[in-house]
Amino acid sequence: MQKPLNIGMIGYGFMGRAHSNAYCKVGHFFDLPYRLVLKAVCARNADKVRAFANQWGYESVETDWRKLVERQDIDLIDICTPNNTHAEIAIAAAEHGKMVLCEKPLAMNAAEGRRMVEAVEKAGVPNMVWYNYRRVPAVTFAKQLVDEGRLGRVFHYRAKFLQDWTINPELPQGGTALWRLDVAAAGSGVTGDLLAHCIDTALWLNGPLTTVSAMTETFVKERKHNLTGKIEKVGIDDACTFMGRFQNGSLASFESTRYARGHKALYTFEINGEHASIFWDLHDLHRLQFFDHRDAGVVRGWRSIHVTDGEHPYMGKWWVPGLAIGYEHSFVHQVADFLDGVAKGKPAQPDFRDALRTQYVCDAVLESARTGQWVNVTLI
Amino acid sequence: MQKPLNIGMIGYGFMGRAHSNAYCKVGHFFDLPYRLVLKAVCARNADKVRAFANQWGYESVETDWRKLVERQDIDLIDICTPNNTHAEIAIAAAEHGKMVLCEKPLAMNAAEGRRMVEAVEKAGVPNMVWYNYRRVPAVTFAKQLVDEGRLGRVFHYRAKFLQDWTINPELPQGGTALWRLDVAAAGSGVTGDLLAHCIDTALWLNGPLTTVSAMTETFVKERKHNLTGKIEKVGIDDACTFMGRFQNGSLASFESTRYARGHKALYTFEINGEHASIFWDLHDLHRLQFFDHRDAGVVRGWRSIHVTDGEHPYMGKWWVPGLAIGYEHSFVHQVADFLDGVAKGKPAQPDFRDALRTQYVCDAVLESARTGQWVNVTLI
Amino acid sequence: MQKPLNIGMIGYGFMGRAHSNAYCKVGHFFDLPYRLVLKAVCARNADKVRAFANQWGYESVETDWRKLVERQDIDLIDICTPNNTHAEIAIAAAEHGKMVLCEKPLAMNAAEGRRMVEAVEKAGVPNMVWYNYRRVPAVTFAKQLVDEGRLGRVFHYRAKFLQDWTINPELPQGGTALWRLDVAAAGSGVTGDLLAHCIDTALWLNGPLTTVSAMTETFVKERKHNLTGKIEKVGIDDACTFMGRFQNGSLASFESTRYARGHKALYTFEINGEHASIFWDLHDLHRLQFFDHRDAGVVRGWRSIHVTDGEHPYMGKWWVPGLAIGYEHSFVHQVADFLDGVAKGKPAQPDFRDALRTQYVCDAVLESARTGQWVNVTLI
Amino acid sequence: MQKPLNIGMIGYGFMGRAHSNAYCKVGHFFDLPYRLVLKAVCARNADKVRAFANQWGYESVETDWRKLVERQDIDLIDICTPNNTHAEIAIAAAEHGKMVLCEKPLAMNAAEGRRMVEAVEKAGVPNMVWYNYRRVPAVTFAKQLVDEGRLGRVFHYRAKFLQDWTINPELPQGGTALWRLDVAAAGSGVTGDLLAHCIDTALWLNGPLTTVSAMTETFVKERKHNLTGKIEKVGIDDACTFMGRFQNGSLASFESTRYARGHKALYTFEINGEHASIFWDLHDLHRLQFFDHRDAGVVRGWRSIHVTDGEHPYMGKWWVPGLAIGYEHSFVHQVADFLDGVAKGKPAQPDFRDALRTQYVCDAVLESARTGQWVNVTLI
Repeated sequence: MQKPLNIGMIGYGFMGRAHSNAYCKVGHFFDLPYRLVLKAVCARNADKVRAFANQWGYESVETDWRKLVERQDIDLIDICTPNNTHAEIAIAAAEHGKMVLCEKPLAMNAAEGRRMVEAVEKAGVPNMVWYNYRRVPAVTFAKQLVDEGRLGRVFHYRAKFLQDWTINPELPQGGTALWRLDVAAAGSGVTGDLLAHCIDTALWLNGPLTTVSAMTETFVKERKHNLTGKIEKVGIDDACTFMGRFQNGSLASFESTRYARGHKALYTFEINGEHASIFWDLHDLHRLQFFDHRDAGVVRGWRSIHVTDGEHPYMGKWWVPGLAIGYEHSFVHQVADFLDGVAKGKPAQPDFRDALRTQYVCDAVLESARTGQWVNVTLI
Repeated sequence: MQKPLNIGMIGYGFMGRAHSNAYCKVGHFFDLPYRLVLKAVCARNADKVRAFANQWGYESVETDWRKLVERQDIDLIDICTPNNTHAEIAIAAAEHGKMVLCEKPLAMNAAEGRRMVEAVEKAGVPNMVWYNYRRVPAVTFAKQLVDEGRLGRVFHYRAKFLQDWTINPELPQGGTALWRLDVAAAGSGVTGDLLAHCIDTALWLNGPLTTVSAMTETFVKERKHNLTGKIEKVGIDDACTFMGRFQNGSLASFESTRYARGHKALYTFEINGEHASIFWDLHDLHRLQFFDHRDAGVVRGWRSIHVTDGEHPYMGKWWVPGLAIGYEHSFVHQVADFLDGVAKGKPAQPDFRDALRTQYVCDAVLESARTGQWVNVTLI
Repeated sequence: MQKPLNIGMIGYGFMGRAHSNAYCKVGHFFDLPYRLVLKAVCARNADKVRAFANQWGYESVETDWRKLVERQDIDLIDICTPNNTHAEIAIAAAEHGKMVLCEKPLAMNAAEGRRMVEAVEKAGVPNMVWYNYRRVPAVTFAKQLVDEGRLGRVFHYRAKFLQDWTINPELPQGGTALWRLDVAAAGSGVTGDLLAHCIDTALWLNGPLTTVSAMTETFVKERKHNLTGKIEKVGIDDACTFMGRFQNGSLASFESTRYARGHKALYTFEINGEHASIFWDLHDLHRLQFFDHRDAGVVRGWRSIHVTDGEHPYMGKWWVPGLAIGYEHSFVHQVADFLDGVAKGKPAQPDFRDALRTQYVCDAVLESARTGQWVNVTLI
Repeated sequence: MQKPLNIGMIGYGFMGRAHSNAYCKVGHFFDLPYRLVLKAVCARNADKVRAFANQWGYESVETDWRKLVERQDIDLIDICTPNNTHAEIAIAAAEHGKMVLCEKPLAMNAAEGRRMVEAVEKAGVPNMVWYNYRRVPAVTFAKQLVDEGRLGRVFHYRAKFLQDWTINPELPQGGTALWRLDVAAAGSGVTGDLLAHCIDTALWLNGPLTTVSAMTETFVKERKHNLTGKIEKVGIDDACTFMGRFQNGSLASFESTRYARGHKALYTFEINGEHASIFWDLHDLHRLQFFDHRDAGVVRGWRSIHVTDGEHPYMGKWWVPGLAIGYEHSFVHQVADFLDGVAKGKPAQPDFRDALRTQYVCDAVLESARTGQWVNVTLI
């Protein structure tokens, strides 16, 4: 018999929907050690939060997150709010003994992140950050191939995250829908929003980055601010490119932008090893491109692996070979793994500490872009 | 306030899961005129059906479908059982005034299908057949492009459905998992299983097929039968190819097989019109390839449209541009459209009558393969 | 020291250029047993043939092909004229003891082709037909893979040749540039022009086709005739689709058309075997797609082999890995192989007899399209 | 009547063949203002140079390049020798009033390059550097699209040149075949060999690069040297990554390596503009990917343009739509354009001065990699 696990979610935007969907769905496909209960959802707008609760089946609502974290009937706090609120909420939740799930990036900066890690570790509560792309089956499968040693010595790791949705200079910044463009709410632009995903995957697949040299650009210098109604300076980075070195001797090449016309969410990575190479692309998320130099010479070629077989990570839980799952399923997998980790006392990754590593890279990248110097990454 | 609509599902295999998932999920993403209630699920094995009910939240179970169709608290019967049971169940359900959803193909043959159509039309109950691929967003989008007249006069329609999962001659036939290989349960092989999908889409996009010439093959002539334990003759078609003519003057080229090594579920179609062409592929289901001859000459090319924008069919209900949905979502869309049709009194397609058209083509194809002659398709 | 071999070419259109280029170029890249001499080119228009001779370095010109085939200083006659002239010229050339190279298709029909085969075989002269696609490196490589037994039992062979250049109904038929649209000059439409290529490759890779069922269509029924200036009935097939069976038990699916909007010269073929599958596409002629089921399950995928390594057929003669050759090189390879065959007394393929096999298939296809019946192919 | 133009080529390696092929072929396809005469080829090994002359039809040979540049019967000197000889030969050739064609990169460094530019400009002789990729039709077509203003303001330019042929540490350095791995002969590794191509195209398409930050790596630190027979330090860069800024405000991201397993000659570039984006890839050199935001929203997609139509640059000279040309044709086009420029007195690009701009970028890149600082590019 499954024990109930009561969820209290804060925020009901895009991520609130993605997480709620995962909570509703995971038990239909995975054998879980807990029965998830949508206990409460919290947001400042009472009408809207009630409507959201109705649509998704949350049992109750709150409009003050402090009340939520104090409730005795809540086991887990899930933070889906803008970046500038993560630290305060997460620390309070930990102090009340709640498990804490937090949207990425962990924090506004590494200093904040460090305090968050201290809080959850001191409280001894399970914690995790929603770097969901690790759990796209093709990406998890890439990790398997790396762990099996199929690549040999790695020479290159390159990643890009290209979007094009902010090219229009008339697009305003700030407010509920566009807080990602407001530096006060987001902390940074593409670095924390997009590169953070690339870095999380990279550290997972290829180990620590030790040193970086970066460049950022803000193409549109001023935008109307939704909170003030005035034209204001844009504080975020519209684009960020960096190169660097990994501890394993391989070279890093990273780029992200919201000004790459024609790309909606083109997160790609490629790893070139002595024996094999791997390429993945979020727009065709089921395919892993794999080149194995140990194949016989004449028939060597990039293999387009449609990662939908029962033997592929997570796929045995879904449909039949050839039939795709989508973006949302990465969240389902993350919930399943988190619960499994809680039950077994082996924390699923990335936990707060792991996400702090990504934060240190982001901080180093932004510092390098500011100073024009190579910057060493703090390693923990 | 939404009225409840009580669902009784028969069968809990692959399709039982796909439909249950759609029922659970559709209300989170679509504004529905009804609140779906998982009232009962029915199957012969009491233990297994109870476990299934538990996992998906069905309120009750039955082990005899006749009881289910008689229950007063059921509004809709959903038939997810092997093909040889569709007619009897559907007719009984209609006679009890239930709405009827039926897995494809509609029936074992057109004669059966005709009786089913008569039953639902006489009873005046909403009815639909799960040709789900119409509601993959890229396919629905193809229909939009056709309806807008972008193709002009059509010259060619070609479709393939290629799989490779039955190449191994040691694979047995029959029983719960492999009834699709048993002619007594399935009626035909790839014709009813795979080509039926291709034909449904084709009739929808390109109008009636009038005449066909077909060829079938059974590559593995004998397989162990799971129900008898003996080696028995294989009665299904392993592969079926046909050509034909549409009423609009275009030529048809169709092929399906379970012996195409390297293809898991490669359903593809291409339409070549005077002005434009369209290509789609289930393995990369979010992409629609579109060639428009009216583009300026030098920059003409096949456009790879990633059908994930808010303006694309259904996609405004899901995530953000660039982020994929999967196979299962086609069922969600079909439920949403069905309910919308019921509420508005405008039946969603394909209803039984529409699915019977596909059945007539299948029958003509199989007759042509048997006789080696061109066969005219019965048009209704 | 290389012996000279004196070439006399008839016709200077598209194929005249392709062959001349091959003659000029082959000796720079291949070690040849003969030194090719461009002795004479022949065509009816004296001015134009002289200009062509100038541009390509032919030593002399003729305006009557009968004179050319009688010249003592000519060793080889190369026929690049419309189909309705092949038989007469080839037979005369053979009777004068010349080697004969002939553009495809061999003849207007199999009856003509049979007389041509008799002539060259009686005369004992080396002969070959320009089915050049066999010698695109990726296609030759496909043949290697087949011959190595990598596919196992073959289930399916499918080929298409799709173009779109005759959709415009204002395009006239006949005359120098458009004789391919004039049934009197071409014998048939896409069947002899495009399908003949597909059939030649298929017989080479997969053995004899034994029986076919075909359908043809002429979408534009009348066109202005360039020779008469009048609107005349179009006698050629604009599109031809056929299915059939190979002697090895595999199923055939073939299609060709000049009405597939968006495709310029999309010749593709795919072979599905028990163990492996192969796909090729003329638009990206350097890539061979290869799926090997004997790869370990999780890393199985279609390999995109860029056939440009030194180990790949012919490629050691050209540049370095990764650098493409093009369409014209297939002719260079064919010349090299022909000369090698002459020197060794082992005729390069396809010779006239081999090309006659393709002609028999074309005849059966056209007969089937006329009669609506399955037709057996004459095997020789 | 065409005037003869007598060519004297120095070097007969890979590039010697590529250039000779272009000289032999260009007149068959292009109407030229000059008739090219292969007057002499020069290399130190008398036997080999004679064999080469025989195979390609050079009228005479030399074994001392100084003699060649002094010959009265030579109009043009073509330098196909290792980088460390370019300057001396080119300057001598210019001083003797010869036209000079020089393989890329122009020189060992910008200082040398500057002297070369001074020499040809002082002598007033036509000159050009073989950055051949500008004249792949799809690349030339990209330039057209840029010049027509289709991209609008440019935000990003990224290029990569990835190879994998030096991963094996047993591969020696130096000598005739492997001088590119010997810093004394090559000046640098991938920077001068591969990045130089990327930079040339970038400056042409996107204007001056003003500042760069770079990183280089030598993965294999020691290799046997073919000239000494001893294990020696490797002085070249195996990989080079740089970022930077263009004068037009766009960001640069460049990478090249010979350690990217699975890539033979993967030169790719992508430009992201306000209105449109372009992508090209040498492995599939006929395709230009083009995304135009001004297409109607729902049908926006990357267009795969098969650049083989008669309207596309250079393609009207070759075959018919859909039929590919290859790597070698870029050299043919360059010869045709060079001769046209000579005849019209409008120098074809890139001339020495233009190639010096690329050299300045290479120098800045290498300096940045050495110092870890951003470096400004010398602009001329």
